[in-house]
Amino acid sequence: MLKKVYPRFVDALYQNGTLRSCIFATIHSESTHELVKALENKHLSAYVGKVNMNQNAPDKLIETTDASVSETIDFIEAIGESEYVKPIITPRFAPSCTSDLMHQLGRISNDRSIPIQTHLAETKREINWVKELFPDSKNYSYVYKDHQLYGEQKSLMAHTVYLSDEELEMAKNENVFLVHCPNSNLNLTSGVMPVTTCIDRGIQVGMGSDVGAGHKIGMNHTITCAIQCSKMRHVLNPEERILKESEAFYLTTKMNGRFFGKVGSFEEGYLFDALIIKDPDYLIDELTPLEQLQRFLYCGGPDSIIGRYLEGCRI
Amino acid sequence: MLKKVYPRFVDALYQNGTLRSCIFATIHSESTHELVKALENKHLSAYVGKVNMNQNAPDKLIETTDASVSETIDFIEAIGESEYVKPIITPRFAPSCTSDLMHQLGRISNDRSIPIQTHLAETKREINWVKELFPDSKNYSYVYKDHQLYGEQKSLMAHTVYLSDEELEMAKNENVFLVHCPNSNLNLTSGVMPVTTCIDRGIQVGMGSDVGAGHKIGMNHTITCAIQCSKMRHVLNPEERILKESEAFYLTTKMNGRFFGKVGSFEEGYLFDALIIKDPDYLIDELTPLEQLQRFLYCGGPDSIIGRYLEGCRI
Repeated sequence: MLKKVYPRFVDALYQNGTLRSCIFATIHSESTHELVKALENKHLSAYVGKVNMNQNAPDKLIETTDASVSETIDFIEAIGESEYVKPIITPRFAPSCTSDLMHQLGRISNDRSIPIQTHLAETKREINWVKELFPDSKNYSYVYKDHQLYGEQKSLMAHTVYLSDEELEMAKNENVFLVHCPNSNLNLTSGVMPVTTCIDRGIQVGMGSDVGAGHKIGMNHTITCAIQCSKMRHVLNPEERILKESEAFYLTTKMNGRFFGKVGSFEEGYLFDALIIKDPDYLIDELTPLEQLQRFLYCGGPDSIIGRYLEGCRI
Repeated sequence: MLKKVYPRFVDALYQNGTLRSCIFATIHSESTHELVKALENKHLSAYVGKVNMNQNAPDKLIETTDASVSETIDFIEAIGESEYVKPIITPRFAPSCTSDLMHQLGRISNDRSIPIQTHLAETKREINWVKELFPDSKNYSYVYKDHQLYGEQKSLMAHTVYLSDEELEMAKNENVFLVHCPNSNLNLTSGVMPVTTCIDRGIQVGMGSDVGAGHKIGMNHTITCAIQCSKMRHVLNPEERILKESEAFYLTTKMNGRFFGKVGSFEEGYLFDALIIKDPDYLIDELTPLEQLQRFLYCGGPDSIIGRYLEGCRI
């Protein structure tokens, strides 16, 4: 099954123009290796994490702490040689990891300079649960910080719908990336991240499709959904400003790209990543380049992408 | 231009499986006729309205009252013979029509038993504007009612994001259809219609793509967007329940179909309208029929529709 599903998933990334990604795989090493293979075969760049989870999950999805740690190390070492794929430490989220496991993952991350991705403050219920599970940590963000899983290495925190003021300040100071996944948050009835508030505070905000719960893999859909979500927040609170199209595009290209190095811009010194967009079905022939981009963002899909470049190579 | 654009628009309806529609054309008779022709050529069923607008619009989009009325009558009479297309009275919305024009449109509608479509309570600013423009009417809904444009004939009221309690009761008692257009409401920063509240009060609620401001023509996208929007309202007000998938599907098929007669269901006595769905790219081979439908709703598009039936004929 996984030899069938992962190549199709990777092909969907390719078709939709997502040439670099950060992926939560599963707790299973073998299948995670299949994902890595599929990405390499398609020449797509990615950070892939074998997920860690040793509590609060269905029995068949729970690892022992030792197995979780040793398989993580094995995965990191096996992936070491990959041209396209890099490992990323991926505790599913605080509630599914014991403190002991998180300490060991923090150590692996820092000893080997490996980045981190996890979930943070996606729902209110989850925040209360984390409080109960980790009463000694000051807040949810500190649960990760207390285990060296927050900001020591490059860190992606997915969702962050309900961060406290203190945690927003912390995200800024620790140079953590908050990842806005609007479609997923809507589908799971989580809420909507205050994305412009985060931007205006100088926090690094990236954009994610989270196809675990989001139903659209193309990042153009994430862009338009994020704009719609910010408009909804603006209706409720007119003081909170709307996410501009240009900003949403910037978050998805240059800001997301920052996690990969000098990526996501056509400025000098940046790796040349590019999509060539040509909508096959313009209703009106003469569109400006900006209008063509807008049409791609709102109505585009795989058929609108006629070329894909990663680090200067057509793929 | 319009001979080029309308056939492409109609083809997009066909490709996306919208075999019946209610369409606001423009104030221009000639182009509206082109739309009718395009629909007939493609064998799609529709109510088409020549839009009426004699005030509060850019100069080149304003008609005289006489021209607006006489062109409306001409359009209705010209369309009389069409097999697929029927006329619908279409005042753009109250602010763009004088009371005199609306009175005459109401008379045309009732003399000839022609249904009505217009906009209602889409934004708060518009509601205040209508209050200023029509101080003698009890509320926005009554502006139409006072001109025989509300409930005497089949009536579609698009958007209805901000109806008062009294107007909701009125919509129920007058058998008016409220048309939920969630993508459009998000894109225009209008707000979100309380769709489950309307359903639970026994009001007829239909679903619209409103491609004037909505960016997705496929009704499957309207369904998923409506569900997402209701989830958002639920987050803010947990007492307001979420729109179920089955309900959203029902609104889009049997409820929308009701406007066309015995349409939108496979029950005995109904016209046989159908789409045959077969996703070309299931990641998993064995999906139940419900799962296949869900996949179409969330991820489907023209490629997932391999057959289209209107009134028993494959088109």
